[in-house]
Amino acid sequence: MNMSEIKIFSPASVANVSCGFDVLGFCLELVGDEMIIRKTKSQGVKITKIEGQKLPLDIKKNVAGIAAEALVNAYPSKEGFEIEIYKKIQAGSGIGSSAASAAGAVFGINELLGKPFTAHELIGFAMEGEGLASGSSHADNVSPILLGGITLVRSIKPVDVIKLPCPKELTAVILHPKIELKTFHAREIIKKNVSLEKAIQQWGNLGAFISALFNEDYELMSRSLKDEIVEPVRSLLIPEFKLLKKASINAGALGFGISGSGPSVFALTKGKDIANKVSQAIVEVFSPIGIDFEIHISTINNQGIEIIPN
Amino acid sequence: MNMSEIKIFSPASVANVSCGFDVLGFCLELVGDEMIIRKTKSQGVKITKIEGQKLPLDIKKNVAGIAAEALVNAYPSKEGFEIEIYKKIQAGSGIGSSAASAAGAVFGINELLGKPFTAHELIGFAMEGEGLASGSSHADNVSPILLGGITLVRSIKPVDVIKLPCPKELTAVILHPKIELKTFHAREIIKKNVSLEKAIQQWGNLGAFISALFNEDYELMSRSLKDEIVEPVRSLLIPEFKLLKKASINAGALGFGISGSGPSVFALTKGKDIANKVSQAIVEVFSPIGIDFEIHISTINNQGIEIIPN
Repeated sequence: MNMSEIKIFSPASVANVSCGFDVLGFCLELVGDEMIIRKTKSQGVKITKIEGQKLPLDIKKNVAGIAAEALVNAYPSKEGFEIEIYKKIQAGSGIGSSAASAAGAVFGINELLGKPFTAHELIGFAMEGEGLASGSSHADNVSPILLGGITLVRSIKPVDVIKLPCPKELTAVILHPKIELKTFHAREIIKKNVSLEKAIQQWGNLGAFISALFNEDYELMSRSLKDEIVEPVRSLLIPEFKLLKKASINAGALGFGISGSGPSVFALTKGKDIANKVSQAIVEVFSPIGIDFEIHISTINNQGIEIIPN
Repeated sequence: MNMSEIKIFSPASVANVSCGFDVLGFCLELVGDEMIIRKTKSQGVKITKIEGQKLPLDIKKNVAGIAAEALVNAYPSKEGFEIEIYKKIQAGSGIGSSAASAAGAVFGINELLGKPFTAHELIGFAMEGEGLASGSSHADNVSPILLGGITLVRSIKPVDVIKLPCPKELTAVILHPKIELKTFHAREIIKKNVSLEKAIQQWGNLGAFISALFNEDYELMSRSLKDEIVEPVRSLLIPEFKLLKKASINAGALGFGISGSGPSVFALTKGKDIANKVSQAIVEVFSPIGIDFEIHISTINNQGIEIIPN
């Protein structure tokens, strides 16, 4: 079949998962953007429509456009592509809004071209789009969107990403406080140097968390979901972070941390029942503050980005 | 059976395995100390004999004595214990000489007491002995000796150590250059702060290496056996480190690094044939220097410390 148009669902994702700052991410269900990508007779990439969010149509200023161009430049074709984006993930929410657009664009174009690139290869193109959003290229959101499940970015130059096992009961609770917190601000407050002692704790915890994913050892996941490096600083930007974390852990969460660079926060739980309790506990803490918010419960999306049949 | 005497083999080990500085260690075959531990009617711990090395018999000044006392204080008994140590692992060699003595002492006494403690619990006592040797407590040598195989130290306070999978073909080549390099000197030259960027690389690599152990992915082991934090500094103390590393990698090694805090270095290979080639390559580089050395080839010892039958 020679497809001329494709409709996709590009899901939200959580990066900077506690001990896995800049390397560990996972993909969510339900919450995600929809995109339509269409072959055109004239070469080049165009963004023809964006709904749900005010974002530039100029492909040089839009993460989806930059990512799409990176792919098209690496695989010249006589045809061009036009992209429609139906944003459901709010920009600046910390659950991979720009990554979803970037990953969606390259995924869709790759499908229409007959899949010249593997999902792993698409990460590099999507990263170029991500670079616009965060000020530096990173792959910890686009990787779980493109590969599904939980991913580890070993290296970005060259791109080397490992898909990790995804225990079936692992469930995420996401709180999105509706405050603005642009990624590059959140990046700036991180110290450029860290103590070796804390770095060692961090890599001990990350190693243990990965081992726990392989062994489905929820107790060990809980002991290792820690971040002594970035969270102590960045959490100061998030209203009532400490209380939210305490309430989540008390309600049975395995761990609690900042999603991406915030303001969204996540809890991980074993199973949906505990996720519901954690969600209630979070709402109880956050509601009285008076800041508008959204809350989602989601199992880990082990498939990642997908085609919506016509 | 009420044992009154036990003879054990306490093997050498490699700690600070590249990306796993201070957390990752593995246990060797063949090279190791022998120890005899005997119940006595009078309480307390005595070291009655040390052969093969000049080390203090005073239990307050001997890692085996300190470790043994830590255990005995935690589990008071009417009997006492005397220890004979037949050192085969040279002190200061970087392959866990003090750890073997400390682990051996607590393992042996625990057996004679009827195993009141698990192997995991023994790590804490053995660490106290290790504290004397290195100036700070660490568990990355005693853990693989006591648990066998490859271990990850997630935390030392409290002790939380994970035994990782041990791919059967994984083989180590150990070069011990006979130069003196006391552990606390090697520790002093490490910087107390590291760049966040390099720390992220390190934890990405460690995560990938652990994933590779689970999946027996030797290619990924090779890509992730890196250390941009400690090795660049410490390797300056080891004659011809760069050449040795290059020759080993060219001969097929998956990775090459400093064992413990040196001066020993290790290569890891897939299988014994490559290990033999790597060993030859190392000897070719090191022989002309004129420094005395020993070289060992060893598969990973997945059992760890063991009882020698009478």
